[in-house]
Amino acid sequence: MFESRRSVQIEWGDCDPAEIVFYPNYFRWFDASTAQHFGAAGLPKPELRRRYGVVGFPMVDTQARFHIPSRFGDTVDIVTTITRFGRSSFDVEHRLMRGDKLAVEGFEKRVLVRAREGGGITSCPVPEEVVALFSGAQP
Amino acid sequence: MFESRRSVQIEWGDCDPAEIVFYPNYFRWFDASTAQHFGAAGLPKPELRRRYGVVGFPMVDTQARFHIPSRFGDTVDIVTTITRFGRSSFDVEHRLMRGDKLAVEGFEKRVLVRAREGGGITSCPVPEEVVALFSGAQP
Amino acid sequence: MFESRRSVQIEWGDCDPAEIVFYPNYFRWFDASTAQHFGAAGLPKPELRRRYGVVGFPMVDTQARFHIPSRFGDTVDIVTTITRFGRSSFDVEHRLMRGDKLAVEGFEKRVLVRAREGGGITSCPVPEEVVALFSGAQP
Amino acid sequence: MFESRRSVQIEWGDCDPAEIVFYPNYFRWFDASTAQHFGAAGLPKPELRRRYGVVGFPMVDTQARFHIPSRFGDTVDIVTTITRFGRSSFDVEHRLMRGDKLAVEGFEKRVLVRAREGGGITSCPVPEEVVALFSGAQP
Repeated sequence: MFESRRSVQIEWGDCDPAEIVFYPNYFRWFDASTAQHFGAAGLPKPELRRRYGVVGFPMVDTQARFHIPSRFGDTVDIVTTITRFGRSSFDVEHRLMRGDKLAVEGFEKRVLVRAREGGGITSCPVPEEVVALFSGAQP
Repeated sequence: MFESRRSVQIEWGDCDPAEIVFYPNYFRWFDASTAQHFGAAGLPKPELRRRYGVVGFPMVDTQARFHIPSRFGDTVDIVTTITRFGRSSFDVEHRLMRGDKLAVEGFEKRVLVRAREGGGITSCPVPEEVVALFSGAQP
Repeated sequence: MFESRRSVQIEWGDCDPAEIVFYPNYFRWFDASTAQHFGAAGLPKPELRRRYGVVGFPMVDTQARFHIPSRFGDTVDIVTTITRFGRSSFDVEHRLMRGDKLAVEGFEKRVLVRAREGGGITSCPVPEEVVALFSGAQP
Repeated sequence: MFESRRSVQIEWGDCDPAEIVFYPNYFRWFDASTAQHFGAAGLPKPELRRRYGVVGFPMVDTQARFHIPSRFGDTVDIVTTITRFGRSSFDVEHRLMRGDKLAVEGFEKRVLVRAREGGGITSCPVPEEVVALFSGAQP
């Protein structure tokens, strides 16, 4: 599967009185990593909309496991992969690394949605091209 | 001028490694206090839109002065007043109190905006009824 | 098991361009609910430290399932229970309700920690009194 | 005066239902820019402590003026300068640029503090070397 990577610098305001990252911030970073993952594969959100009418991929279920804390001044890397495509859903995995150590694991289940006639949104099938792109793409 | 008040409980995740509130959070709370101020005066945002076509009041300029830090477990009160109306702008003042001590002062200049024909937003005059409401209202 | 409940008002700044709550905020609210859960049972964090030397309960693993989105102006209730005690860990469950509908479910696994001689922290057994308190307590 | 610069990518979760950056986030980024400014000058926080006993520079007063909104997908640059040193305080100015347009201006007054005997913190004079470093340094 196609893998993307980005760095995050831990700021003072990301940390709590225990002097470690306040964990909801990891979900904020993972969300940005998923958005960037589509961009890195050549399919940023505006392109998803233009080509397939997909307006977003809301979260259905997410989980994180915390192995090693990070602190102000640390720079971490987030490595992102889509691990599975369902009919209209897909699973994302993030590995947040401090050097070569796995610090946090993040898991997401999201669904592709498009606008529904009459208003609101509805889930839509994952286009075959999208599956192909993430299964084999090497940008 | 009409004055409104609300309480905020300081949470663990609002505080930084110095064990005091990370100051950008004060702006988050002041923003919510301004929204609630309109609601407390009987003019919540949906009503502003329905009656006057006003879709929001974006921030133009904001300032805060920090006198006393607050910590996890503290409950503070925010007292909010509109101190001045201009043609399409208005000034808001927040006093964040720890008991009877002034802990933080917040100042905002905002403008009323409505949708512009052809898209986007444009500033609009403050309706006289709105000025009257905040100048004399006692809910 | 002892159950606690608190209300959260959804603010403008909690929501994203899809006009629904940006999901990392749910984890922020769940963290505050767990802290308040101990307080509601008569055992706030300072008391945990004084009686048992417990300095905190870091997160090991957390998950959330999103059933119904919430929006600016909504008020939601979070109902919190400790569902299981291990040797030094415990599981928390949060049900975030919009009226009588289950909107978000949150799950946490945390460990009790105390200061370690020579610096740092180490996990410590859950005191029997704590287990008893949450198993039967009705404040 | 010494000037430093860094880029910030605007994420989905930084934006509100008006589809523009929720303004408290600018203060979060400005805080990180001030921390990085000291690092860029060769004087990161740990070095400040080691050399001068300075444990931090809490905010006394901050202000921002919003000229142009930014949106999800934008990359902005923050240009930071210390514009004035007082006895124990200093003033910081941030210019957040979208391309060559000034989007947001940020102003900060901070004080240098060191630990006080008996506990707590107290303001301390700005070391002459620090003034010299920022007045003339070109890294």
